[in-house]
Amino acid sequence: MRQFLDDEFLLYSGTASALYHTYAEKLPILDYHCHINPKEVADDISYSNITELWLYADHYKWRAMRSCGIEEKYITGGASDFDRFRAFASCMPKLIGNPIYHWVHLELKRYFGCDLILSEKTAEEIWELTSEKLGSDSMKARSIIKASNVELLCTTDDPCDSLEYHEKIAADSTFNVAVLPAFRPDRAMNIERKGIRDYLGRLSTVSGIEIRDIDSYIEALASRIDLFEKHGCRTADHGIDDYMAYSKPNRYSAGEILKKAIESDGADISEDELALFKCEVLKFLGGEYRKLGWVLQFHMGVSRNPNSACLSKLGPDTGFDTIHGKNCIRDLSHVLDMLYAENALPKTVIYSINPSDNAAVGALIGSYQYHDGNRIQPIHQGSAWWFNDNIEGMRAQMKSLANLSAFGNFLGMLTDSRSFTAYVRHEYFRRILCDLIGGWVENGEYPADPDSLGQLVCDICYNNTKDFFGFKLN
Amino acid sequence: MRQFLDDEFLLYSGTASALYHTYAEKLPILDYHCHINPKEVADDISYSNITELWLYADHYKWRAMRSCGIEEKYITGGASDFDRFRAFASCMPKLIGNPIYHWVHLELKRYFGCDLILSEKTAEEIWELTSEKLGSDSMKARSIIKASNVELLCTTDDPCDSLEYHEKIAADSTFNVAVLPAFRPDRAMNIERKGIRDYLGRLSTVSGIEIRDIDSYIEALASRIDLFEKHGCRTADHGIDDYMAYSKPNRYSAGEILKKAIESDGADISEDELALFKCEVLKFLGGEYRKLGWVLQFHMGVSRNPNSACLSKLGPDTGFDTIHGKNCIRDLSHVLDMLYAENALPKTVIYSINPSDNAAVGALIGSYQYHDGNRIQPIHQGSAWWFNDNIEGMRAQMKSLANLSAFGNFLGMLTDSRSFTAYVRHEYFRRILCDLIGGWVENGEYPADPDSLGQLVCDICYNNTKDFFGFKLN
Amino acid sequence: MRQFLDDEFLLYSGTASALYHTYAEKLPILDYHCHINPKEVADDISYSNITELWLYADHYKWRAMRSCGIEEKYITGGASDFDRFRAFASCMPKLIGNPIYHWVHLELKRYFGCDLILSEKTAEEIWELTSEKLGSDSMKARSIIKASNVELLCTTDDPCDSLEYHEKIAADSTFNVAVLPAFRPDRAMNIERKGIRDYLGRLSTVSGIEIRDIDSYIEALASRIDLFEKHGCRTADHGIDDYMAYSKPNRYSAGEILKKAIESDGADISEDELALFKCEVLKFLGGEYRKLGWVLQFHMGVSRNPNSACLSKLGPDTGFDTIHGKNCIRDLSHVLDMLYAENALPKTVIYSINPSDNAAVGALIGSYQYHDGNRIQPIHQGSAWWFNDNIEGMRAQMKSLANLSAFGNFLGMLTDSRSFTAYVRHEYFRRILCDLIGGWVENGEYPADPDSLGQLVCDICYNNTKDFFGFKLN
Repeated sequence: MRQFLDDEFLLYSGTASALYHTYAEKLPILDYHCHINPKEVADDISYSNITELWLYADHYKWRAMRSCGIEEKYITGGASDFDRFRAFASCMPKLIGNPIYHWVHLELKRYFGCDLILSEKTAEEIWELTSEKLGSDSMKARSIIKASNVELLCTTDDPCDSLEYHEKIAADSTFNVAVLPAFRPDRAMNIERKGIRDYLGRLSTVSGIEIRDIDSYIEALASRIDLFEKHGCRTADHGIDDYMAYSKPNRYSAGEILKKAIESDGADISEDELALFKCEVLKFLGGEYRKLGWVLQFHMGVSRNPNSACLSKLGPDTGFDTIHGKNCIRDLSHVLDMLYAENALPKTVIYSINPSDNAAVGALIGSYQYHDGNRIQPIHQGSAWWFNDNIEGMRAQMKSLANLSAFGNFLGMLTDSRSFTAYVRHEYFRRILCDLIGGWVENGEYPADPDSLGQLVCDICYNNTKDFFGFKLN
Repeated sequence: MRQFLDDEFLLYSGTASALYHTYAEKLPILDYHCHINPKEVADDISYSNITELWLYADHYKWRAMRSCGIEEKYITGGASDFDRFRAFASCMPKLIGNPIYHWVHLELKRYFGCDLILSEKTAEEIWELTSEKLGSDSMKARSIIKASNVELLCTTDDPCDSLEYHEKIAADSTFNVAVLPAFRPDRAMNIERKGIRDYLGRLSTVSGIEIRDIDSYIEALASRIDLFEKHGCRTADHGIDDYMAYSKPNRYSAGEILKKAIESDGADISEDELALFKCEVLKFLGGEYRKLGWVLQFHMGVSRNPNSACLSKLGPDTGFDTIHGKNCIRDLSHVLDMLYAENALPKTVIYSINPSDNAAVGALIGSYQYHDGNRIQPIHQGSAWWFNDNIEGMRAQMKSLANLSAFGNFLGMLTDSRSFTAYVRHEYFRRILCDLIGGWVENGEYPADPDSLGQLVCDICYNNTKDFFGFKLN
Repeated sequence: MRQFLDDEFLLYSGTASALYHTYAEKLPILDYHCHINPKEVADDISYSNITELWLYADHYKWRAMRSCGIEEKYITGGASDFDRFRAFASCMPKLIGNPIYHWVHLELKRYFGCDLILSEKTAEEIWELTSEKLGSDSMKARSIIKASNVELLCTTDDPCDSLEYHEKIAADSTFNVAVLPAFRPDRAMNIERKGIRDYLGRLSTVSGIEIRDIDSYIEALASRIDLFEKHGCRTADHGIDDYMAYSKPNRYSAGEILKKAIESDGADISEDELALFKCEVLKFLGGEYRKLGWVLQFHMGVSRNPNSACLSKLGPDTGFDTIHGKNCIRDLSHVLDMLYAENALPKTVIYSINPSDNAAVGALIGSYQYHDGNRIQPIHQGSAWWFNDNIEGMRAQMKSLANLSAFGNFLGMLTDSRSFTAYVRHEYFRRILCDLIGGWVENGEYPADPDSLGQLVCDICYNNTKDFFGFKLN
């Protein structure tokens, strides 16, 4: 029997172990999609206790606590920090098989040197131990990032953002980790939502371009893309909530729809109109991204805020989002076809929230590849995302991708996290990756050639991301 | 190589074996959803041969026989009992990998002390052997139930049922197994089906409330809920055939739709009207269930009677039902949201017939949890159901649930069966469960703490169900 | 550690190995669905180099090369044959986990006696070696087929085909492999496509029946069925592109729709009209197939030519097709119900392109079985198809089928290929099959009875197909 979380955690063969310890373990991290607040890096924040670090903003943990029937005051707040931590600790034994169980213990081990098993019984001891450690300089945001061997991270930023913190971080020669913005124009594109008028007002102000019609709208977005590009941006994220809908784009109709949205503050926009508008904007943005060599990331199929009562009480991003369920592969296919035909399909990564779509996405990307002179082909399926970011989910996504595409060019892992200690997810992924490859080799399904295996591991953990996004590192 | 069906069947590690033999094997059974006829318990029926026990009502076996090209007279009847058994036996070798293969041999072993492998060759010997055994008192319905270590079972009952047999069983002090009714109002809610007028007439008669409009309809249902509650009912089952459809409920429109259904005997009800009507009734029923602490079980996504020719010839529940296929997660989400907002969302268990929906259901339940003071959170994904009730299906459902929710609070197994020897399905489940947990521990994915592991197994096999449903046992 | 691709490749237990080497390995191949051009068999073609064999027509490899970012001239042509091969070789290391990686090396081993690992480094050596071998008579089409132990193959043929090459092959007593046509009426049924007028003109000419209305259309198809039957045809293939749509058929409306299609050359046909027309034709064809004992194969759910720009440039079947995504189980169910009720449901095999539909298809077939006096029941789920034709996909399809149906009657493998060396896919399948069965036995999930296990393997690899299709072999 193996010890819980020992050095060989998740490595079930000699080849797996060798690949991990020889190559994967030591590679730097390029975290190309996360939700870290750049201000917190700029300010080099610290935490006074483990609740601040773990329970102030992590909706994965909030959801897990609710799934154990915990009272809301221990989840999103109201109770004391210690009581919140103890409540979380009390859930742990029930989270057998859940990635949170592994993440939490990996974080305790890697960042706090703590081998204890978290439960209600050990909550107090771990609280003391972590509080002490969090008081030291080694646990300030930048120190954690550096200790995690992170070379670069991409935050997620609204077109209206000033990017002042990115600028500040870049200007600070004492911190040589690249913190790049990523362009996320969701709020500008979701013109059916109340508040769109205010939002476009702000976009007008920050861009200096008054948005009156589709042309000025496009112009304003373009000017923000310029700004992001100047700050080293290499990627745009598009959240495709619910599902992707295709409607043949045209500039005139998109203009009429935008006008209506501005007049009604989003109230009168039908689903078809929204689809047409978004396709038209996507056509423009895709072309811009392609020119700049940016990578378009599609995060697809999330049902946001399905619990309206809790949305009113707690706001968005509090652990209620779920899998939409509707299959939209066909519409996505139409969108990619339109962009391809217009030469406006940039390098693209598609993440699906529903593991049942793995094969359909894995097949789809193969229909829109083209030769752009890069080592890595332009269209990808993204790593197992959100509800799939667990052992089963990652194995399923990787096996499916290998079956249907060129696994050697896979872009590997990202944290998608708001937390500075979430980098253990890269370790988790790399162990699972090395185990998968090692298993293939031990089974005689792939030749036992150490050099080409080492290459594969280094490519998937590091090189592919670097080359694909075109990151320029110090 | 392991012997077929030996003591270590499905237990692939030392920890798995220890967990099963130390804990799971000995725990009583709380069979919280089955289709046993309470009259058969009240009458303590016996069987004169194995065909009566196995082939008179089990549509799983009928379907398997049809899948082997057997003539219908050997399936639903016409041929002699022995010939029917021999025909079934002849199918067995082809059922490799099918759960029926395991169930049949577990039943032979546990209830008949028979280690023979069923095939056409052994059919006669097994026929003799089982006939002899079935003649003894130990093979009468109640004896089987007691020998199976069943403490409680919930039947499935129409609101019109008198519950006289439940009453009779409860009054009989010689039989101390609780046989509780479960409230299944499907026929009352399916107002688009021919015969609804007759049905509501019967409901009027048994309730003493003449159903003329939506208010009296609701009142009649409420009075039956009272009756069920008096008989110790703790749960309602709702069969969501085809798919769940949401339409914003309102009492007035529901009333108009009901009137139309009564007038036309179900003929003129559109899909939208049906959805609205059902959502309105569900709002009422959900609130009642919640007040009473009942558990609402949603059995979702079955396509009933898709073979119209065979429906005419053989009637419903004869082995033709199938997986509908349409994903209705979004509508289900709207229904849960509506109930949540109305404080009418009771404790709920969602069973999906399509394994491709595992992740979507597992994520969805996390969006509607609330704190109700119970040890177990209110919203659950149910055990692998019907077409998924096999090794692969159970493993997939459990791994998915563990990834997405709190596996320690899982409600475990139920038989969903019409047969008194189907309790071996609990053994089957418990072995798979212990193997899953044991595997995690042996792999170093969970600590090897015997106490907390024993607790997990006992909770999932017994305690969680007891506490969640609020069963009061002798 | 196992050697790459050694004798025990994919056989992970002693029982698996014994079943493969004792039974499966030696069985002849009945390749009941492929896309080999019968003219190439009649002409007994040869290849001057490996690019002709591998890269002139195989859209699986084209897709894989595009997925590695290769320039189009190395894929569908323009560059020299050697450069194309070298480009393909350069992709190989990235195709870890992809079935192409295994197929390529199995083909090198079995047909060329070559144990080298294909990569850019070995490309030249393998080019030389294969070129030499391809020059020998042993590598002409018929020799490859015979050396592969193929007893029979079914091509895929349009109703307009003359079947002259089938006739020629049959008449040639020096070649005793049966090469049968399969009836694929897709072009006749897709009346919504431009060119339907021309197509029906050709069908009129070859059948000698002028197609003016639905009756003459049906008559023309019937006459071609007669012709196919005379050439030993035992099966029809229907490609259900996108998804299956049901609309209650009637002859009169179908006639009106056909007239409109002829007048507008396919332009004015709505989706509903197309569904009705196809259902009416299917009702007729199903009845004919049933009378003749033919097997209807449904290939379902492919999205054809989703990349319109590449379709214009490269034409169809060039590696762009993908998984449609939309679940059409319910409509398929209506179609089967209609055919069943009309006694027009022939022996049928359903292949789904989306692995997420495995369970729904596996359950569905059980709803339409009937007794037709054959050893094998009439309705089947087909082997893992196209994007699923890999280790994971085959295991998933077989486990799902075993759970839901009678695995002992499974029809096993077909190549679905255009290439004469694709028969290694049967070896691949047989190894995976034997490993699955062997694993069940070693785990104690099925009795270790060598005779019945040998029977199972021989049935699934050979006997079932022979009996089900009613192939008459020399």
